[in-house]
Amino acid sequence: MPTNWTLDPDRCFDPDVTQRFLARELYQTVKDLPIVSPHGHVDPALLADPEARFGSPVDLLITPDHYIFRMLYSQGIKLEELGIPPQDGAPVETDHRRIWQRFADYFYLFRGTPSGLWLADELVNVFGVEEKLTSTSAQRVYEHLEARLKQPDFSPRELFARFNIEVLCTTDPATSRLETHRALRKQGWEGKVRPTFRPDAVTDLSAPGWQENIRLLGEVGGEEIGSYKKFVRTLEERRAFFNLMGATATDQAVLVPYTDTLEPNEVEAVFQRALRGGATQEDTHRFNAHMLMEMARMSLDDRLVMQIHAGAFRNHNEPFYRRFGRDMGADIPIVTDFTRNLLPLLNKYGNDPRLTLILFTLDESTYARELAPLAGHYPALKLGPPWWFHDSVNGMIRYLDQVSETAGLYNLAGFNDDTRAFCSIPARHDVWRRVTCNWLAGRLARGLIDEEGAHEMALDCAVRLAKHAYRLP
Amino acid sequence: MPTNWTLDPDRCFDPDVTQRFLARELYQTVKDLPIVSPHGHVDPALLADPEARFGSPVDLLITPDHYIFRMLYSQGIKLEELGIPPQDGAPVETDHRRIWQRFADYFYLFRGTPSGLWLADELVNVFGVEEKLTSTSAQRVYEHLEARLKQPDFSPRELFARFNIEVLCTTDPATSRLETHRALRKQGWEGKVRPTFRPDAVTDLSAPGWQENIRLLGEVGGEEIGSYKKFVRTLEERRAFFNLMGATATDQAVLVPYTDTLEPNEVEAVFQRALRGGATQEDTHRFNAHMLMEMARMSLDDRLVMQIHAGAFRNHNEPFYRRFGRDMGADIPIVTDFTRNLLPLLNKYGNDPRLTLILFTLDESTYARELAPLAGHYPALKLGPPWWFHDSVNGMIRYLDQVSETAGLYNLAGFNDDTRAFCSIPARHDVWRRVTCNWLAGRLARGLIDEEGAHEMALDCAVRLAKHAYRLP
Amino acid sequence: MPTNWTLDPDRCFDPDVTQRFLARELYQTVKDLPIVSPHGHVDPALLADPEARFGSPVDLLITPDHYIFRMLYSQGIKLEELGIPPQDGAPVETDHRRIWQRFADYFYLFRGTPSGLWLADELVNVFGVEEKLTSTSAQRVYEHLEARLKQPDFSPRELFARFNIEVLCTTDPATSRLETHRALRKQGWEGKVRPTFRPDAVTDLSAPGWQENIRLLGEVGGEEIGSYKKFVRTLEERRAFFNLMGATATDQAVLVPYTDTLEPNEVEAVFQRALRGGATQEDTHRFNAHMLMEMARMSLDDRLVMQIHAGAFRNHNEPFYRRFGRDMGADIPIVTDFTRNLLPLLNKYGNDPRLTLILFTLDESTYARELAPLAGHYPALKLGPPWWFHDSVNGMIRYLDQVSETAGLYNLAGFNDDTRAFCSIPARHDVWRRVTCNWLAGRLARGLIDEEGAHEMALDCAVRLAKHAYRLP
Repeated sequence: MPTNWTLDPDRCFDPDVTQRFLARELYQTVKDLPIVSPHGHVDPALLADPEARFGSPVDLLITPDHYIFRMLYSQGIKLEELGIPPQDGAPVETDHRRIWQRFADYFYLFRGTPSGLWLADELVNVFGVEEKLTSTSAQRVYEHLEARLKQPDFSPRELFARFNIEVLCTTDPATSRLETHRALRKQGWEGKVRPTFRPDAVTDLSAPGWQENIRLLGEVGGEEIGSYKKFVRTLEERRAFFNLMGATATDQAVLVPYTDTLEPNEVEAVFQRALRGGATQEDTHRFNAHMLMEMARMSLDDRLVMQIHAGAFRNHNEPFYRRFGRDMGADIPIVTDFTRNLLPLLNKYGNDPRLTLILFTLDESTYARELAPLAGHYPALKLGPPWWFHDSVNGMIRYLDQVSETAGLYNLAGFNDDTRAFCSIPARHDVWRRVTCNWLAGRLARGLIDEEGAHEMALDCAVRLAKHAYRLP
Repeated sequence: MPTNWTLDPDRCFDPDVTQRFLARELYQTVKDLPIVSPHGHVDPALLADPEARFGSPVDLLITPDHYIFRMLYSQGIKLEELGIPPQDGAPVETDHRRIWQRFADYFYLFRGTPSGLWLADELVNVFGVEEKLTSTSAQRVYEHLEARLKQPDFSPRELFARFNIEVLCTTDPATSRLETHRALRKQGWEGKVRPTFRPDAVTDLSAPGWQENIRLLGEVGGEEIGSYKKFVRTLEERRAFFNLMGATATDQAVLVPYTDTLEPNEVEAVFQRALRGGATQEDTHRFNAHMLMEMARMSLDDRLVMQIHAGAFRNHNEPFYRRFGRDMGADIPIVTDFTRNLLPLLNKYGNDPRLTLILFTLDESTYARELAPLAGHYPALKLGPPWWFHDSVNGMIRYLDQVSETAGLYNLAGFNDDTRAFCSIPARHDVWRRVTCNWLAGRLARGLIDEEGAHEMALDCAVRLAKHAYRLP
Repeated sequence: MPTNWTLDPDRCFDPDVTQRFLARELYQTVKDLPIVSPHGHVDPALLADPEARFGSPVDLLITPDHYIFRMLYSQGIKLEELGIPPQDGAPVETDHRRIWQRFADYFYLFRGTPSGLWLADELVNVFGVEEKLTSTSAQRVYEHLEARLKQPDFSPRELFARFNIEVLCTTDPATSRLETHRALRKQGWEGKVRPTFRPDAVTDLSAPGWQENIRLLGEVGGEEIGSYKKFVRTLEERRAFFNLMGATATDQAVLVPYTDTLEPNEVEAVFQRALRGGATQEDTHRFNAHMLMEMARMSLDDRLVMQIHAGAFRNHNEPFYRRFGRDMGADIPIVTDFTRNLLPLLNKYGNDPRLTLILFTLDESTYARELAPLAGHYPALKLGPPWWFHDSVNGMIRYLDQVSETAGLYNLAGFNDDTRAFCSIPARHDVWRRVTCNWLAGRLARGLIDEEGAHEMALDCAVRLAKHAYRLP
């Protein structure tokens, strides 16, 4: 007997009647606003090719989503059993129906998790699944999804329209020629999909294949990069090109947000050592710190918004990394110090309101201790939304509770979905809108803000803060 | 005029009517389940001797409980006034009625604390006290307790049955011959009380009397320990013996959970230095890290569940330690880094689902930042419940809120009472059951889990997660 | 059309009907109690001169309040536009009506912040403003305030009486002759305004102008300070003088609460180097640690309560500091370790209940991890209230939730307003009283404390804990 799958229309709202009533009212005013997605990892090729499709339900929902398979892996399920191929060529499950069955058998693992919440929303509201995913219903749900995914109105482009996405920013390496973005613009999609300049592969000396990346950068830039000076000039040119192609922002991921300025001869010497493959750990540490400074300087020139994502210890699980590669759910956060690490950068550029620097953390203890006080003082700083593990109902509440009193709402950068899972975008924005409306309803019910304030703040959270912070038209 | 002492039947539940109604319903399904206590410090001798008794109310509730007397001490009351003898032989209060009076006079200090909650539950529900403990009622309550403690149905064994304890795991040094456990099993108590292998006194080079402990270990093992190799073999044999005697787990307390592997000749050299009393601080640091690795390796062989309790700075108060000894309420937590310290161990053993490693922390900032992401990825990892200072209503809520979204519920290890205060066991499990049911009711009322999920999760929290994590039959 | 500005009489209370009802009841019992302000920064000259006035609305509310202008600055508004003069003599806005207009235009930035809450309370309840501050109402509100500020009953002294301040402690440098306090006592204000001994300028070797400060200290002490021994004796004499003038406490601000004892010859050598301007960074670090020990020793002698405010990285923004000076909203918190840093001090003096040492932190992760366990053990320790960025509705809830279970209520030091903004004092105490009553109502509604306990604890929070901790009569 199929269980009818209905989602609570009041999900994420506090049960208290007063707060819930106010939350509903606020939510009504924002739930249908267009989606502004200023930072994420959707592959633009999905949208550039009108014929692109999502593949099977497993291709769509399981194999590309490390939020999903890390949880299954943590419970002893091998990635091979989920159809994810190790780099050693070991055999892997290829029957998508069996993979789906396994997923359904373990779907209880996602109880109370953000992945569980997004998936339910996606299955019910995007794909019209009507019975709850269980071991018993697994094959019927699979068939339902498979049928939907073949329909013309379930192409990425059709869903883009249906999702009411006003703008979607992708993440693109500094060496990208942005062919797909170019194609999209030619097709008249101008402004809807924007690239973001991500230079980590060339600005971080510890990036795998850095020398090759520099070679590639030279190739794309039209001239070999034999000096730091040339390197910086090429970066500036690439940024100008991204800017021209619609980018409004850059993005850098760093383990430690250490910033420092090297003297011209020092930085040139380090760069030369790195080109020859002889950079020391100290070189890497100082060069990376210097490049954060340089990127801030360039942002002051070209007005691209600067983003720093700090504190993820990448590929913590080395044997796993060697077998499956990067971005497979094995990155673990560490303690992060912003107050001292950002001192040089903020002293040099933080007082200039023409710069916008958006900070992201995985260390929530920095919210109230460092980030809110920093953003509540420096004109250049804004705080990014709760990131990654903290992009969740409780994560959002902790963020709002801990940053808003000191930073205020207007030093925040709104919401990012930060996802490569295109079909989860509406669910992710919806959770943010629900949680912010409920949180504002709580403030209002406690007499801490007034009705006018609550309504304005709901609109700010849903759309306006993000557009403003990312300088989106 | 005696005040009638009644406990709120809805204690620990949110006041919101919807959530409270759901919390009550969930709690009804778990409140009478047997108690599974997989980690604690009850002296098994209490249960091995059918004639064992608890002594006076002061012997039961005050002198052995550092949760109680640390609070009184913090307010300027001397331990001597509570009947706790210093090691310098200074005079000490011996009149238990006067000690009890002093305790009652200061009972207000425990308002809103977990000790206050447990004590009230214990006095009312275990001992049938009917008037609130105050300065005025103190002597009457004392007499009531004294009378009860003399009754045959208030022996440890009778209470064990009345408390409905399915299994109780004790903590036993590696050098223990487990005589009491042997006696218990002979008496037909098989399986109800299980030992736990606690090797700190021999695996931690900084343990007081380490050399003597090693001598003792050799004695128990039947052969002198003159080499690291012999040491490891003896440990393995002791584990096998504990296993045979019903143990399913080991437990180690470390200041810093640093892990590392020493080369065979290195570790032998360090061990020899330590035997001669010449180990350096660096030796200790590295040897202890090596022993965590070794214990994980052994757990993979013999399948004993491994526990690490990290981050307590033991005996912070040195003059107090010299006067009163260890475990007297003067241990203070420190910042703990799991991400980097556990890297070697997790890289070597963390991907093997046959290992279960349960982590405990006193640094709550690691919940969402490190522990939940680690447990949400590594198959071998599970998170222990809120520990020690955090085994409290708010501590549990913070734990559930901060770990459950990223780790899910199924990477948690259920509840531990971790107590030596036998009569507080039901109260401690009851608080956990109430708080988890209320927390689940809150998730349900917010539409974040469904009814079926909430019911399953309530049972999981109460009993099933603990049995599963600790491999209890 | 003017908007009528009314504040929610139930502000800060949870919306749940049960909790709100109980919160109201508790609040009724404390809301009109006299204000006890044991730590703050009001200039005593305001009260010493019967003719003193507050100046314009801008002089009162904007230019002296770094909570206000840091937020405006963070949004790109120059301090010069707010009438705050840089030290380089650049031109500055002098038209207070235009400054006020600018402030009103940006008043929305304070939505949901403590500054917003205090300001609303101050404008409505102290100054009787009836329309909400907006761009449109700005000039009318300005005129209203200007008129009020000229009325005789809006002098500082009249407001002191109207605010029902029982005692107000100021913060005074060690070199102060306390002329104003002397004048106040002469005028019959004895006991109402008390000085606090703040020796940072002479005990912290890194204090700007340390040598000059020492010269000044010698001058005030009546004898040149040429040796550490003389320095200590002078400090002791100054403390005795402050004590005589009504002080009951001292206060020190430190970046890191490191404590250590230097040998007499060592400390003398460091002091001599410092006098000659040759102290190293290591000297400063160790001397400052030594001075915390010395201050504790002196407190044991003269019974002045010792306060330590730790963890503010002062003047983080160097170019801003050079232009505008100190205490301008550019201090940023850092991670703080109390467990290890305070070890020497607590081992030497922490067991003596005659000492009271009150700790303040800006690193909330220390609440449950370090501070509550420390205060729940050491007789000498008490925890100061949520400080600075954490003196807010959510900050207070986090504090109460995180410290009360382990430290209990009776190891806390009640509330400090810590403000130089005299007219905000009632609003600040009112927020604390509302939040504590609501929090206690929540404990009561959950059956975690009883009615009698809740009532006592409400009185304790409002007044009694502060008076007890600061030894105020």
